[in-house]
Amino acid sequence: MFEIKIDDSKYWKNCIDAIANIVDEGLFNIAKDGISLKAIDPSGISMVSFSIPNKAFSKYELDKPISIGLDISNLIKILSTSRQNEYIIMKNTGNKFNIEFVGEHSSRRYKLPIIDVKTEDVKEPNVPVPESVIHVKSDGLKEILKDANSLSTYVGFKTTKDSFVVFAKSDIGELEEEHMNDAEIIKKMDITKPASVTFNVEYLVRIINASPQGSFISLGLKIDDPIKINYKIGDAELTYYLAPYIES
Amino acid sequence: MFEIKIDDSKYWKNCIDAIANIVDEGLFNIAKDGISLKAIDPSGISMVSFSIPNKAFSKYELDKPISIGLDISNLIKILSTSRQNEYIIMKNTGNKFNIEFVGEHSSRRYKLPIIDVKTEDVKEPNVPVPESVIHVKSDGLKEILKDANSLSTYVGFKTTKDSFVVFAKSDIGELEEEHMNDAEIIKKMDITKPASVTFNVEYLVRIINASPQGSFISLGLKIDDPIKINYKIGDAELTYYLAPYIES
Amino acid sequence: MFEIKIDDSKYWKNCIDAIANIVDEGLFNIAKDGISLKAIDPSGISMVSFSIPNKAFSKYELDKPISIGLDISNLIKILSTSRQNEYIIMKNTGNKFNIEFVGEHSSRRYKLPIIDVKTEDVKEPNVPVPESVIHVKSDGLKEILKDANSLSTYVGFKTTKDSFVVFAKSDIGELEEEHMNDAEIIKKMDITKPASVTFNVEYLVRIINASPQGSFISLGLKIDDPIKINYKIGDAELTYYLAPYIES
Repeated sequence: MFEIKIDDSKYWKNCIDAIANIVDEGLFNIAKDGISLKAIDPSGISMVSFSIPNKAFSKYELDKPISIGLDISNLIKILSTSRQNEYIIMKNTGNKFNIEFVGEHSSRRYKLPIIDVKTEDVKEPNVPVPESVIHVKSDGLKEILKDANSLSTYVGFKTTKDSFVVFAKSDIGELEEEHMNDAEIIKKMDITKPASVTFNVEYLVRIINASPQGSFISLGLKIDDPIKINYKIGDAELTYYLAPYIES
Repeated sequence: MFEIKIDDSKYWKNCIDAIANIVDEGLFNIAKDGISLKAIDPSGISMVSFSIPNKAFSKYELDKPISIGLDISNLIKILSTSRQNEYIIMKNTGNKFNIEFVGEHSSRRYKLPIIDVKTEDVKEPNVPVPESVIHVKSDGLKEILKDANSLSTYVGFKTTKDSFVVFAKSDIGELEEEHMNDAEIIKKMDITKPASVTFNVEYLVRIINASPQGSFISLGLKIDDPIKINYKIGDAELTYYLAPYIES
Repeated sequence: MFEIKIDDSKYWKNCIDAIANIVDEGLFNIAKDGISLKAIDPSGISMVSFSIPNKAFSKYELDKPISIGLDISNLIKILSTSRQNEYIIMKNTGNKFNIEFVGEHSSRRYKLPIIDVKTEDVKEPNVPVPESVIHVKSDGLKEILKDANSLSTYVGFKTTKDSFVVFAKSDIGELEEEHMNDAEIIKKMDITKPASVTFNVEYLVRIINASPQGSFISLGLKIDDPIKINYKIGDAELTYYLAPYIES
């Protein structure tokens, strides 16, 4: 049995969006210190790791740790009904997951079936420490991906000692976009060793889509390795891995 | 011969929207005291009854009562061209229905064919007095239907002595939404006998879609009977009936 | 070799939109005094003639006149990435057309292939001087075409000594819209001889779509002849010809 209260229903919707953008179902691990979830997208090329500490909630009671499998795409439909000035109570009863939205003079209760979610295959990839880490403005990165998308479904990220270069190529033409380490969109660059790796644009877009306006995203790159992407939504922390695109 | 003037063309467009959301064609009865129309939607599960008194018009002249059959979906296309500060003159010439939009230095005249509309089957259903009547805010009811739609194509309305409960159910999950009689969206509840009836969400959405922002809608419920829905758009009065959904 | 700088990347995007709305590819003639392009749309019923003087650019260097064939639909994809406070440098290297967007601390370079564009067939139609010229507000003309489109895919323009009449007809009904020469949307009418000609609405919409808000469009009409449409986007001048619709 658990009973968890979130004061701002729209905030919780944003958190779950960050998961729903990548996966259709997942296993929420509800533990003493907070809630976490790891899941691989159906195509197997990306992974999300979500965690939020108990302090993000105004009520956080559970008798023992529990794992709750949910259909995330159904969960997000329900959270999309969030209104201003509603809080959420989540609890479990039998094999149902209960979400109650409570406003001043009305409330609505949703019950979702708890489903079996296989998680044996879900573990964070054994990724060595990235050799290039760029801290970039969320809004700037969204524009960069739009630029690349104007040409191609793939985008390359290249780091040099003092610049972050984005490139793309297709029948339409070629793009090269250079951001010096003093560019407005770059907060910090830690380059141990330059890297150049190519990724699927659509997955990158889905991964960063839930990052809040004005927030920062960290991109960890190492040649031939998955990119490691981090950002926060309030107290919630999101880490994603996306496999590089190998030209065939 | 009739000649009718409406000072605000956009207002008239809103009135006809309330009909067009349900039916494709209809017979406007233009009488001394005003205009009325009754029509059943093509699927036969809902009905609209529209009436507007002559005082809503700045000019209202007719020599004798007349019925004008129109293709409502074509009429709404034409009314959608309404601009700010235009008035409308409607009249009949031969077998054409004339709509003239008049602005300060320009005017445009549309002629629509008058069509045959069979109305022998259109009569208000012999509905007993509803036993539960809820006066609810239009905007709140629109949100309620969105909530239900997140789960299901059907929604149930249930009344108790002091609450209005909305419920829905599907493979996705279950919804129960309770509004006490002091809820912000409830203006008044007259419950002679509690009721619980289920309806098609899409039809409800279409029926209430034209209700003005900030207006009130009355819902008349009786178990196993069609719901009776009333609202006003300025002086115009809309009454709808929608058959209950019978689970098969 | 040429190198051309535009201070406002979004302005350049608007200019190219006026071409892209009609044609998919075209030959830009880059001469001492400015850039021009003439192209016929794939269906052969309309033509665009674009010209912009060198003074519109903050840098305009070329060693000798050159013609550059480009895929306009790809060019517009790239220009759509324009951001606030960016300037554009355009130049050629080898058989590539280079577009560089430069912001304060970042830049991105696109390279587009230069393509072969056949232009032997492109010459301005041998149109006699129009006998009716109407100078009309861009925004008003856009609404007129929307009115006509509510009924039909064709629209007629008719001029009399002191009015500009728009008409349309279909199964839905008939439209007649009269604008006196003192109407708000009419700036000036020069009527040597009244005309009445019918055109495809969709082509007219595409032709005038890029005209700036608040600008004026000149319509040159002569019976049985193509319409000649002119407007300016800043220093750039657009002339279009559209063949009349002949009822079959």
